[in-house]
This record gives sequence, structure tokens and C-alpha cells, in this order.
Amino acid sequence: MDTTTIKAYGTQSPEADLKQIQIERRSALPDDVAIEILYCGVCHSDLHFARNDWGMTQYPVVPGHEIVGRVSNVGKNVTKHKKGDLVAVGCLVDSCRSCDNCKVDLEQYCPEWVGTYGGFDKHLQTNTHGGYSQTITVDQHFVLRVPENLDKAGIAPVLCAGITTWSPLRYWKVGKHSKVGVVGLGGLGHMAIKLAHALGAHVTLFSRSPNKIEDAKKLGADEVIISTNEGEMEKAMGKFDIILDTVPYNHDFNPYIATLKTNGTIVVLGYLGPVEAPLVTVPMIMGRKTMAGSLIGGIAETQELLDFCGEHNITSDIEIIKMQDINTAYERMLKSDVKYRFVIDMKSLS
Amino acid sequence: MDTTTIKAYGTQSPEADLKQIQIERRSALPDDVAIEILYCGVCHSDLHFARNDWGMTQYPVVPGHEIVGRVSNVGKNVTKHKKGDLVAVGCLVDSCRSCDNCKVDLEQYCPEWVGTYGGFDKHLQTNTHGGYSQTITVDQHFVLRVPENLDKAGIAPVLCAGITTWSPLRYWKVGKHSKVGVVGLGGLGHMAIKLAHALGAHVTLFSRSPNKIEDAKKLGADEVIISTNEGEMEKAMGKFDIILDTVPYNHDFNPYIATLKTNGTIVVLGYLGPVEAPLVTVPMIMGRKTMAGSLIGGIAETQELLDFCGEHNITSDIEIIKMQDINTAYERMLKSDVKYRFVIDMKSLS
Repeated sequence: MDTTTIKAYGTQSPEADLKQIQIERRSALPDDVAIEILYCGVCHSDLHFARNDWGMTQYPVVPGHEIVGRVSNVGKNVTKHKKGDLVAVGCLVDSCRSCDNCKVDLEQYCPEWVGTYGGFDKHLQTNTHGGYSQTITVDQHFVLRVPENLDKAGIAPVLCAGITTWSPLRYWKVGKHSKVGVVGLGGLGHMAIKLAHALGAHVTLFSRSPNKIEDAKKLGADEVIISTNEGEMEKAMGKFDIILDTVPYNHDFNPYIATLKTNGTIVVLGYLGPVEAPLVTVPMIMGRKTMAGSLIGGIAETQELLDFCGEHNITSDIEIIKMQDINTAYERMLKSDVKYRFVIDMKSLS
Repeated sequence: MDTTTIKAYGTQSPEADLKQIQIERRSALPDDVAIEILYCGVCHSDLHFARNDWGMTQYPVVPGHEIVGRVSNVGKNVTKHKKGDLVAVGCLVDSCRSCDNCKVDLEQYCPEWVGTYGGFDKHLQTNTHGGYSQTITVDQHFVLRVPENLDKAGIAPVLCAGITTWSPLRYWKVGKHSKVGVVGLGGLGHMAIKLAHALGAHVTLFSRSPNKIEDAKKLGADEVIISTNEGEMEKAMGKFDIILDTVPYNHDFNPYIATLKTNGTIVVLGYLGPVEAPLVTVPMIMGRKTMAGSLIGGIAETQELLDFCGEHNITSDIEIIKMQDINTAYERMLKSDVKYRFVIDMKSLS
């Protein structure tokens, strides 16, 4: 198979810093789109995967699944994209295309979905490698169109942080009359506020820290509830149709469940670690309340989101970094010292 | 206010057996229906409430919220029922009628709903008293029509065990193409199997005991999975649209969540006690799975169920007892020694 050697940033072990390495990319097969990467967002999963926090990493790893670039070449069957198009790749680069989930555009729940990194590339018979790199070659089905009016760096985090919050907002039919709660103001939380607000919902941030109030309101929150303040939590009882819980560590859901209306849903989006706090089901029974999980989104839904962002001129609030600054960026992420997402300018790798 | 003294069975303390007592019933007010009770089902809640297991009982208690009887008299505003009608009363005898839940026929989620026993009777300014009694007087809105073709004793448990399983089957739109799981074969479980089967669903019982297989199939189950058999549980992974979990003590939900399809829901119907097993949310995230609670049903939905039972000739499998046998029946219930519900023949109290 024809391949090209390119520059990337990756690591060979959980302890090592990321550094420049070389990887192979396949030349465009008949259904492939070859992409020159312009920007790549930095997701918490990148860090967890690089450091093998989830115990399933195979090395070398090249992270990155919030990819924006230009089409440099297409295979002969490609009809969806052409050379020069502004495109994006998110968390998925392949799936079985034939299971019940794939048939209804839920590729993210396909048992055989292939991650943009850490998956298995059936063509090259190696690990897939992500967007901390100069180029990527992806089957056209998994390549998304990016509206040209959008900031090319700011749109990158929409491919993971954005779609992870958009998918539950759409599945649970959030609109003008919805009361939406968002727990946590990080990469996911800030996108949840922007998107729910743009859908016309009344949006409330739950946060432990009063110094998030001003920022949350600038992002589109109508209200902020300090979750450690019992009086404020009590006043919020029975108010919300849906709560998106973006907090990525173990915490107690029960106080948030109390703030749901009858038929309300709390959607857990973050990985809470190996130990979880017990639910108390009685309040769920007394109000037909539900707790759900939700994972990124399907390809059609991600395209819908990019188009929605184009119409509403929504992008993520970001800090642009050079590829060489990734290790410092990881340390800052661990301290939540970023508003709200790092995005790598891939020119820095040339 | 006009009242009549009647015979009932109740208790004055958590430790005492139930015995015959006298209580007052109001004469029919303009919106009231006065009912001669024929049969009353015996629910686990009756026992828990009589013994103050939930710490909220006020004495004296007269349990019973699965009531079937004949109208003996109606108030002047009553249009829904007339003297001689076969009627039923379930778990609710009043609600505020004006909140968001009442307005959409979800009286069971009204913050001010009044239980058939253990609630507060605003007319008499006393506790409400349930169906272990000769008569009951109830506002017409909370009195249900019972199809005359049905067995009058067998229909009683439909008022609680039946509606508790019917409401989630309807809310989560169970029909011909649904795969329904039922955890536990007791009063609720046996109704869940009958109703899901009558709705055309494929029904599977999860049970710990192989000696339930034959009974479950007679009730309408297509399949039985022995939940302690790891191989059977593994084969069931990803199979169910909805699981009704009727088990009324602490247990691990996670093995059942594994058997849900993408977008599947497990509905918790039983009271699990003060300590609950932690969820593991990752599998919920990986398949947009939900866990929900659900409480009995609203009045319109209960009428819908009674009509459905009339059309399909569905009643509960019961063992008829005399009122005087209630204390023995409670002991047998604690040992799950009943198929599947005791129903009191109220003639025994005359």
C-alpha cells in the first residue's frame, strides 16, 4: 500500500512526554479523503490515553480527535468532498456500516467503531493515529464539511466537546421552552451553555465556584447556581427538564436529580472513574426521573451541529498553542487552567 | 359533617397485629361516590405501612389500595358514576388538580397527592383509611369504572401492581416489536408479564430460581433467563428495549444494564431500602442507556388499563382470603409464599 511518512507528535510510553515522531499515512484509497491538518483541539481524553489512564493504550500513540483541515486529495469514488474543501474529522474514522446502530446514523454506538486514534486501521494493519500530525487520510463517510464563515481554530473543539453536548440536547428535544442545567464549566460545559442557549433554552450553570458566574453569563447562561450552597440548591428543586453533567470525576448525582422536573433527565457525559457514588432511586420513582449516559454523536448529527454552528456563528472559546507546547498544555489542563480548550496550530509542526 | 361508623381492619402500633376496629366514613359530598367494598388486594406497601417500615406512619392505620366495589350512593354533582356501578379505587383519592402534573393526568406526581391510606382527609381532618373496610367515600375523579366481564376479585391487584407496570410500558411505548425484560416474579412481575405479552411484546423474565420457568411461561413469558447464570446473562447482552425491575430490595442493576440495547431503559419500580448499589455509568454512556423510576400511574392511565384488561380479559392470579386471615397473609408475603397476590373478600367483615 502507498504511504507517506509525515511528522506527528506522540509518545512511546505512559511516562514519557510527547515529542516529534514520524508516522505513515496511507495515500487516498478510492473512498478516502486526504487532509492537510490546520488545527487540532486538545481533549482530556488525549491526555488520559497518552498516559494509559484507562489501561488500554497501545503505543506509539498520536492523540487528537478534533481535527480541522483542507482536502488535499480524494479517491476516485469520493463524491462528498473535493480538493480544497474545509473539512473536519472527529472521534470516529470507521464503523461496520451495517449494524442496527450504523443503519440509523448512530455510528458512535457501533460495536466495531474505530477511534481516530487508538483504534485499528484495517488498511495499514496498525493503530490509528490522530490529529497531532500534518495530515490524515479518512474514509469520506467520516469526513465532515465545515462552514467557511467559521473561525477555523475555534471550530475544532466542536468535533468532540461540542457534539458530546449537542447529541443529548437533540435526543432529549431541547428547545425554546426547555430549562437546561449544565454541571461544570470546562470544555464540555462551555459548549453546552452556548448550544443550549442558541437552541432557545433557559440555561443554568451549576458550579462550585462563584468566580464562574460572570464567564457563564457571557457564554449565554441565564443563571448560575452555586452547587455547594444548600439554599440555592433547595430553591432549584423540580426546575429542570434536562441536566448535562460534564464533571469528569466521581461526584454525587442525587442533589442534581432533586432539581429535575417530573420526567426530567440527567445525562452523564464524563468518565467518573472506577468508583461511583450510589444513586438514591426513591426520588427518581417519585417523579419518573431518568439518568442516562451519552457518547459523542453520529456522523449525520455532527454535520448537523457544524451547520448549526455556521448559521449561529458558534465556535469554542480557545487558546491557540504550538505543537511543541503540548506537554505544558497537558499540565495546565490538569489544573483546569484553560478557557476553555487548547487548540494546536499545526503550522508549528512544519 | 355527616359520617357513618363502619367496620375496618387496622392497627394502632407497628408491633400489633391488625384487628377489627371502627372508623368513620363521610357521607357522600356533592362530588363524592360512596362505595360498598367487595374486594381489596393486599400489597407489600400495606404491610410496610402498618409496621412503620418507612418511618412515616401515623396510627391508626387501615391499609388497602386495591379496592373493587359497587356504588351505593353519589353526590349531586357526580356524572361519572351511578348507584350500582362496578368501580375501583387505587392508590390515590385526591390531588391538587391544578399543578403541571395534575393538568396532564399525572396525579401520582402531584406534590399534594393524597394516598388512599396514610394521607390526610381534608374533609374529616383525619388520616385517610384504606380498603380493609366495608365502605369508602371518594371524589368521583378518583373512582374508576370496572368492566363487568372481569373477575371482581382478580381485578383488584390491577389497581396497584397492574398500573405500576402498565404506566412504564405505555410511557416507553412498548408494542409488538419491543423486547421487554421483567426482573422478579411477584405481584408486580406477574402483571408485567401478562400486560407486556398482551401488548404484543416479546417478554423475558429474569429470575434467580429455575422453578419459576414454568409459571412464567404460563403467564405469557417467551423466555426465562436465570440471572445467576453468567453464561445466560452474557448471551442476553444488548437484547432489551426496556427492563422493568420489580425487585423490592437492594440489588445490582449493572448486569441488567448490560442486557439493554442502545437507547434501552431499565425502570426501577420497587423500593430498594436505604442503601443502594452503585451504578457503573460507562456502559450507560457507551449505549445511551437510561435508568428511570416510575410510580403507579395517573387516573386516566389507570382507566385505560382497566379497559384494556376488560378487552383482553386480564386479571391478576390471586388467592382469596378472609379479612381475619390478614396477619397470616402478611407473614406468608414476607416469605414470597403467594401466587401472586392475596385479595380479601370483604363479605368476611360483615
